[in-house]
Amino acid sequence: MRLLVANANTTEAITQLCAASARAAAADGTEILAATPRFGAEVISTRAENIVAGHALLELLAAHAGKVDAVLLAVSHDTALEAARQLMPCPVVAMTEAACFAACLLGGRFGLVTFGGTETYRERIAAHGLSSRLASLVGVDATPQETVRDPEGVARKVAGGIAQAVSEGADAVILGGAALAGMADRLQAEAQVPLLDGIACGVKFAEALVSLRLPKPKVGSFAAAFGRSTSGVSPELAAMLSATRAD
Amino acid sequence: MRLLVANANTTEAITQLCAASARAAAADGTEILAATPRFGAEVISTRAENIVAGHALLELLAAHAGKVDAVLLAVSHDTALEAARQLMPCPVVAMTEAACFAACLLGGRFGLVTFGGTETYRERIAAHGLSSRLASLVGVDATPQETVRDPEGVARKVAGGIAQAVSEGADAVILGGAALAGMADRLQAEAQVPLLDGIACGVKFAEALVSLRLPKPKVGSFAAAFGRSTSGVSPELAAMLSATRAD
Amino acid sequence: MRLLVANANTTEAITQLCAASARAAAADGTEILAATPRFGAEVISTRAENIVAGHALLELLAAHAGKVDAVLLAVSHDTALEAARQLMPCPVVAMTEAACFAACLLGGRFGLVTFGGTETYRERIAAHGLSSRLASLVGVDATPQETVRDPEGVARKVAGGIAQAVSEGADAVILGGAALAGMADRLQAEAQVPLLDGIACGVKFAEALVSLRLPKPKVGSFAAAFGRSTSGVSPELAAMLSATRAD
Amino acid sequence: MRLLVANANTTEAITQLCAASARAAAADGTEILAATPRFGAEVISTRAENIVAGHALLELLAAHAGKVDAVLLAVSHDTALEAARQLMPCPVVAMTEAACFAACLLGGRFGLVTFGGTETYRERIAAHGLSSRLASLVGVDATPQETVRDPEGVARKVAGGIAQAVSEGADAVILGGAALAGMADRLQAEAQVPLLDGIACGVKFAEALVSLRLPKPKVGSFAAAFGRSTSGVSPELAAMLSATRAD
Amino acid sequence: MRLLVANANTTEAITQLCAASARAAAADGTEILAATPRFGAEVISTRAENIVAGHALLELLAAHAGKVDAVLLAVSHDTALEAARQLMPCPVVAMTEAACFAACLLGGRFGLVTFGGTETYRERIAAHGLSSRLASLVGVDATPQETVRDPEGVARKVAGGIAQAVSEGADAVILGGAALAGMADRLQAEAQVPLLDGIACGVKFAEALVSLRLPKPKVGSFAAAFGRSTSGVSPELAAMLSATRAD
Amino acid sequence: MRLLVANANTTEAITQLCAASARAAAADGTEILAATPRFGAEVISTRAENIVAGHALLELLAAHAGKVDAVLLAVSHDTALEAARQLMPCPVVAMTEAACFAACLLGGRFGLVTFGGTETYRERIAAHGLSSRLASLVGVDATPQETVRDPEGVARKVAGGIAQAVSEGADAVILGGAALAGMADRLQAEAQVPLLDGIACGVKFAEALVSLRLPKPKVGSFAAAFGRSTSGVSPELAAMLSATRAD
Repeated sequence: MRLLVANANTTEAITQLCAASARAAAADGTEILAATPRFGAEVISTRAENIVAGHALLELLAAHAGKVDAVLLAVSHDTALEAARQLMPCPVVAMTEAACFAACLLGGRFGLVTFGGTETYRERIAAHGLSSRLASLVGVDATPQETVRDPEGVARKVAGGIAQAVSEGADAVILGGAALAGMADRLQAEAQVPLLDGIACGVKFAEALVSLRLPKPKVGSFAAAFGRSTSGVSPELAAMLSATRAD
Repeated sequence: MRLLVANANTTEAITQLCAASARAAAADGTEILAATPRFGAEVISTRAENIVAGHALLELLAAHAGKVDAVLLAVSHDTALEAARQLMPCPVVAMTEAACFAACLLGGRFGLVTFGGTETYRERIAAHGLSSRLASLVGVDATPQETVRDPEGVARKVAGGIAQAVSEGADAVILGGAALAGMADRLQAEAQVPLLDGIACGVKFAEALVSLRLPKPKVGSFAAAFGRSTSGVSPELAAMLSATRAD
Repeated sequence: MRLLVANANTTEAITQLCAASARAAAADGTEILAATPRFGAEVISTRAENIVAGHALLELLAAHAGKVDAVLLAVSHDTALEAARQLMPCPVVAMTEAACFAACLLGGRFGLVTFGGTETYRERIAAHGLSSRLASLVGVDATPQETVRDPEGVARKVAGGIAQAVSEGADAVILGGAALAGMADRLQAEAQVPLLDGIACGVKFAEALVSLRLPKPKVGSFAAAFGRSTSGVSPELAAMLSATRAD
Repeated sequence: MRLLVANANTTEAITQLCAASARAAAADGTEILAATPRFGAEVISTRAENIVAGHALLELLAAHAGKVDAVLLAVSHDTALEAARQLMPCPVVAMTEAACFAACLLGGRFGLVTFGGTETYRERIAAHGLSSRLASLVGVDATPQETVRDPEGVARKVAGGIAQAVSEGADAVILGGAALAGMADRLQAEAQVPLLDGIACGVKFAEALVSLRLPKPKVGSFAAAFGRSTSGVSPELAAMLSATRAD
Repeated sequence: MRLLVANANTTEAITQLCAASARAAAADGTEILAATPRFGAEVISTRAENIVAGHALLELLAAHAGKVDAVLLAVSHDTALEAARQLMPCPVVAMTEAACFAACLLGGRFGLVTFGGTETYRERIAAHGLSSRLASLVGVDATPQETVRDPEGVARKVAGGIAQAVSEGADAVILGGAALAGMADRLQAEAQVPLLDGIACGVKFAEALVSLRLPKPKVGSFAAAFGRSTSGVSPELAAMLSATRAD
Repeated sequence: MRLLVANANTTEAITQLCAASARAAAADGTEILAATPRFGAEVISTRAENIVAGHALLELLAAHAGKVDAVLLAVSHDTALEAARQLMPCPVVAMTEAACFAACLLGGRFGLVTFGGTETYRERIAAHGLSSRLASLVGVDATPQETVRDPEGVARKVAGGIAQAVSEGADAVILGGAALAGMADRLQAEAQVPLLDGIACGVKFAEALVSLRLPKPKVGSFAAAFGRSTSGVSPELAAMLSATRAD
């Protein structure tokens, strides 16, 4: 199967980092394609950037529709997830969503540790319906830049965040955000609970969904669009939205 | 005060319809400006279109930042609401959000009647935290086209939807979507409960917030962005995101 | 329009304080009337006092029914709110309710800082359906008396409470209770998020509702009472409850 | 033990009806005292009447404080329950509250059948924290008057309501409201699930609490009031609120 | 009435401890029978042990079916509660369930203090539907062994846990687990809120339910089983499950 | 990898049916082992049977601990899931749990259609934290026997149940219970939304978790047991519970 790892940040290096993680997690027979959106924020960190990224991501996906068997949204904000799921003819999984569901399969409540603010993660987890399974949200006071400058110091901070989440009841901890890539491997040995990497979880769930060979819903808010008129978007996206109804 | 009525659909006629409603509701001294986004769906009715509309809407808002005192998102999906609120230096209110809160000020639980699917409204109301105050969601089986062709027949269907919502416990009913514009006035006399128009509610709440003269949060996920690098967006939006920190 | 600022405490000085705040917030054309109940607690601080105050408040409102265009319940416990809303022929808004909804229009989650216990505020916010938007409840260890004796010391305590609420995720903070009147203005400059005064919010929302000219529900638990037999209450209240059905 | 059955309606006949039910349910050694409030609605059926009844009820209770071992609020709206619990030095149980908790001890989810509107019951059950255990609320279209005129016809309607609640998932059904007194006995034989009478449940729970000999909380919002200044209330109530702190 | 106090641990000493507590709480006329399961964990402290205990408990109950008037599950995990309730022809109450509901009758929110982990208690309280009334869960760092060795030191730790729960908003505190037996009596004098012992609460609620003489549901998931084929269980349990339908 | 498909019913034919479904869903390289418990109900349909089955299932799992790479609980009640997860050194997934999470990856809200009662499914879905994503629970009025006698008639009933779930907002529908095995394939073509088979979903999620190579939590309520004393259970289960702590 061909799995598109779709970044929503425009930084190609992040895309490649995610693609490498995805390849490490992928089954034999899963080909990882990686793509970076044409426009938007280098690194999404505000609500406005996330909205722009949603548009860019949908255009990116539209350009791959029919050419891939599944999509992994490689962005910790699960950007435009529901819209991508409606748009695409194949399964779409997002990295934080996948990590949350994987965490639920491992224990009772989970934690999420990330850099900086945590409120938008709280909102996403609530939107996934999982508020009652969230034990702890920890925003580590560090920056991506600091990770480059002082990796060991940042690893200590993250380890501290993990320990806090465990003390607040987490049976598993998600490390959220591209800046924490690789941290799960690095810190697992000393952690008291499993550490979850959204990319790895997302690859496995995408493979699982492809293997289940399920049709899309034909009705409701996740059914494919048809007959819509849209201007100023990529030809591929416009074409998908204006498609003739299948049946 | 200057209030921007920002449509997220690209159909100018809808913008004008909303602007007219807004003017009818506005206080003396409230100047209504109306604007239509540069790109996106003629009429948003899918999740993907709503994401694209979010981007277009933010560009539209950025072009008005500093020139208006408040913004009313004139789109029943409350498109990109939280991002717009973060982005803009002035109060931002969305029409369905405003109608929901107004409904809460009138009774216990409320209903929402709209054309077609209701699940995305259910999600928005949950995101507003108001699920426990939602008594009824009714999707009337009618189309905007039908409204033009057979206004009386459609009005009967909507009246039936309102009655259903009341029977399910609604103390007030929101009429959702541009296609229902004007229906509140038309059907109020025969309705058992107040009918709420999101544009009118939004204008009043925007006026109220402007009058309260509150600062924006300086921290958290609604604080203004600064120092962000974004490509492929309008110069105004890029400039707002890359601004130098105020303090 | 004529807006009744109805205190539920029997201390006239608090009524006048609230009336002054209301006048400061009111639009041109909004006339503020203030009224103090005939009986009850000087300052409500227990559940029992709040129940008594509810009765006194309804009598107060009944004495003004038909003579005012809206009512603001100037008591941070939102005393008898739903009953007042059912009773009166005009819009009724309560100060903490108004501040909560205003806070929701400004950000994601909010905090509330007050003197003393916070559990009854937690219950009110839950009754409004807004538990998921409550980030923090902070009970400052101070008394109204202390505010008079050491205003600066108390202001420091309140500022500390605000900072705590922000650190717990609040995008806006409500200052609850008459003893905190004026604190919003005093502490806003140094606060990281908007500070909300319930009186000001309530005045604006009451004005908004009046302007929307919505009818009362004719059915359900907020419809006007009629034909009820009640003894031992004020003639005005008894008359309202025993009214002949309009239709 | 002496158990005060406190009505909140001013109709003495209802008080006597409740007292008779209470005596039928009481253990040997439980003496039932019944009392009717001095003022308020003959039969509470609106929110405003319920508020007035709360005040009247607290005065009634204050007149019995220290003379009874427990109180049962014999009013299906659980009028002023939390305030009564704070006020009194002895356990206070309300009839619908008791029936809800009894229902939870018998199965998974429960139903409530009453005459007329059900929204205020929905609110009470939510305030008790039991929304997730509520399977069904059924408002039977009948009046107390009809019960006198056509008891068999009304019993058929109530039986229909019970059957509906069972079909919606109720493992037990509460019959709410004085007008349904005696219906549980009458309809139990033909019902598929246990039928709960709030008076009987309340008597047993009051006896249970008395037997547990628990102290009141000394802190928090249920601790006894002291040092409060209140005017225009009964001397007994004023005295209780102005008491000197025990410790 | 005959009340079976059914332990789910296989330690006879715990059974006797619970029986003694039950006898202390029981009304005149309530005969306490105590029973210990035939197999399973000496002291349940893991999820797996609790499942095994569920089976053992049902066999224990089946051996007493028809011979007792009610059952109290004397195990703080409320082991197999719903199944026991379905199985038995008489009322079944569990000790933590009973303590939670008793706490709700005393105040607003409650706390629970126990030894060790608290997550399974959180899950039980959620299953009872009472999450919104839970103010605090405190796991005291102590062991049953320590209680024997240093009772005073452990009592200090428990007192600290109670104080923490009160500071987090508890109006009543449940002491959970057999290891805390007797602590309620010992620590009540110095506690700020009532301390609840599950055995005592359970005895009183079981007596209350017996006194109400309610039938079992005849339909739904709590109706008695009939006609089921089961192997490898006790003859009494097999017989109950394979019973011929009553009606 | 070796995946144990563990039935909790004692009917070998159901085990084989599940094993066949599992083999059809398994990846190359996944070896399916199937096992039937030593005791318990032929077909679990009551709460008591489900408790007994939990014990039998844990013994079955203990006999396979260390010999398999993952476990799929092939019982629609997710019997003893959390305990199995704590007990086993490998990932454990349950079939309805897996189907619920798969459904969440496909759309917004889901439905579940099964034979007979639905309340225990409602409770399981709530325990998974997914109540807000449940659109519809439909209990089809049919029996396993009827499926054999009139497969086409039963298929029509199930199709009707699926249509009802879709009309109530389901974007995907889970077919619950062994009696519905094979129905997903049969009815998918005519269904409007994807139909989910718990066995297939569970196989894919178990494969995914194995591939992620995550450690078990070392602390909390899902950490492996050690040093526990248990009597009357299988030697393998007793040995696992009494193990010496690893670290």
